[in-house]
Amino acid sequence: MKAIVTVGLRPGVLDTQGKAVASALKGLGFGDVESARVGKIIELDIPGLDPATAEAQVRDMCEKLLANTVIESYRIELAP
Amino acid sequence: MKAIVTVGLRPGVLDTQGKAVASALKGLGFGDVESARVGKIIELDIPGLDPATAEAQVRDMCEKLLANTVIESYRIELAP
Repeated sequence: MKAIVTVGLRPGVLDTQGKAVASALKGLGFGDVESARVGKIIELDIPGLDPATAEAQVRDMCEKLLANTVIESYRIELAP
Repeated sequence: MKAIVTVGLRPGVLDTQGKAVASALKGLGFGDVESARVGKIIELDIPGLDPATAEAQVRDMCEKLLANTVIESYRIELAP
């Protein structure tokens, strides 16, 4: 089973990396870019677990390591 | 229009960050994790462009700034 975890800053938290990307894109001539936000995507390979157990485990991983839940939110997608 | 760009290391390129994540998860007791790969996700807000122009521009942004195409591949999704 594969789990894809997307971690991003919560709305309202200043995304300095996103601001830098938007500004660099504008500097390269992409004037249509209004804003950018940057997050992480983590693909986990966890064989031999059923979907319910996998989702519970991945949620636990997010809370403990993958996301800083004070400033970040996460989304979990499972694929066979 | 919104564009979501996912950037990840090409298969075969050593993902040291992913290896560190997998090893940290195992250390925390998640022994079922076989491997992890870490990538970036960039959400761009580009108002006032039609989908075809937006996709062409975002592809150009990836080639020029968002991805290092020697070692990374990217995927573009557009949302209204």
